[in-house]
Amino acid sequence: MNQVIKPVEAGHIYHLFNLGSVYLISAQSEDRQDVMPASWCCNLDLVPAKATAVIDKSHYTRKLVEESGYFALQLPTASIVNETLKLGSISKNDHPDKLRECGVSLFTMPGYEHIPLVRGCAAWAIYQVIPEPHNQQSYDLFIGQAVAAWADSRVFFNNRWDFTGHDELRTLHYVSGGQFFVTGNAVEAKGFS
Amino acid sequence: MNQVIKPVEAGHIYHLFNLGSVYLISAQSEDRQDVMPASWCCNLDLVPAKATAVIDKSHYTRKLVEESGYFALQLPTASIVNETLKLGSISKNDHPDKLRECGVSLFTMPGYEHIPLVRGCAAWAIYQVIPEPHNQQSYDLFIGQAVAAWADSRVFFNNRWDFTGHDELRTLHYVSGGQFFVTGNAVEAKGFS
Repeated sequence: MNQVIKPVEAGHIYHLFNLGSVYLISAQSEDRQDVMPASWCCNLDLVPAKATAVIDKSHYTRKLVEESGYFALQLPTASIVNETLKLGSISKNDHPDKLRECGVSLFTMPGYEHIPLVRGCAAWAIYQVIPEPHNQQSYDLFIGQAVAAWADSRVFFNNRWDFTGHDELRTLHYVSGGQFFVTGNAVEAKGFS
Repeated sequence: MNQVIKPVEAGHIYHLFNLGSVYLISAQSEDRQDVMPASWCCNLDLVPAKATAVIDKSHYTRKLVEESGYFALQLPTASIVNETLKLGSISKNDHPDKLRECGVSLFTMPGYEHIPLVRGCAAWAIYQVIPEPHNQQSYDLFIGQAVAAWADSRVFFNNRWDFTGHDELRTLHYVSGGQFFVTGNAVEAKGFS
């Protein structure tokens, strides 16, 4: 056994797999809106596009998702790293004016005025919840089917990401203690045809 | 509406959220072993650590997971980018000798000889499947609870990743067409305490 391979304690295993992008989850019910950062969101299917999102029962956003049956997933960029961190450090349960305190700027897209979206993200997708009560209760796991999506065409074009020349638009990968990775540089596999 | 924001077609929405790390999923049933790359794996819970993995019915690996009730998630590094790509380009359904053809080197950890692990990864975690037949059949979604995990202590220490000085150990983020991102550089949020 290679001497550099060390066991990881049970309580830290999740750190291994927190390499995905940070997401912002937003939702609205009647006139109440909230936005929360989340790392545990993931593609689930291609067409129609589906995604999973883990949303703990303690989050104000969860009530809005359950009431409205919709949520948006968004990719915050380096340009809003501070706002993103603050969104995760206070709760609307205690701070009714959370979104203003965090300095978040919201907008909506035509036809989808019931879902607030966050400026400074690189992509936005709106999902309708596919009700799965067992998953939601037992695992805090929500499944959504995409109804619309948009991306910043400066860094997403030809249906792929290219952040070259746009460091401020690089997506964020949270580590801990206020530290993030940005999405890195390209590496090509050889012999691919 | 900002002019740079463009709609993303339904068939390409999943590209937006493929920014997570590439995983290798391995499994074994009796003397049959397989390894497949996958992007759609995600943390699900902290302690005990749980994870989700989307494993399509077409994959040979899936049979082994269903038969054995175990799978491993691993993070391949830049040092095995070619092997990783090849693992995703041929199937053991058609290539019984797939693992040798792909140049993969396997090992096991003491006490866990029933799960093959791949050399050249930065982390390895073994999961026991929590049977959820509806999720598995309807969404190809498997839920596992971690039973053990290890990491390369050169890049994972104090329970966080730090790839500084180890470019060959950076984890991979697949784009398409043989192109990957490596996990990028750190950026600090200001005012975090």
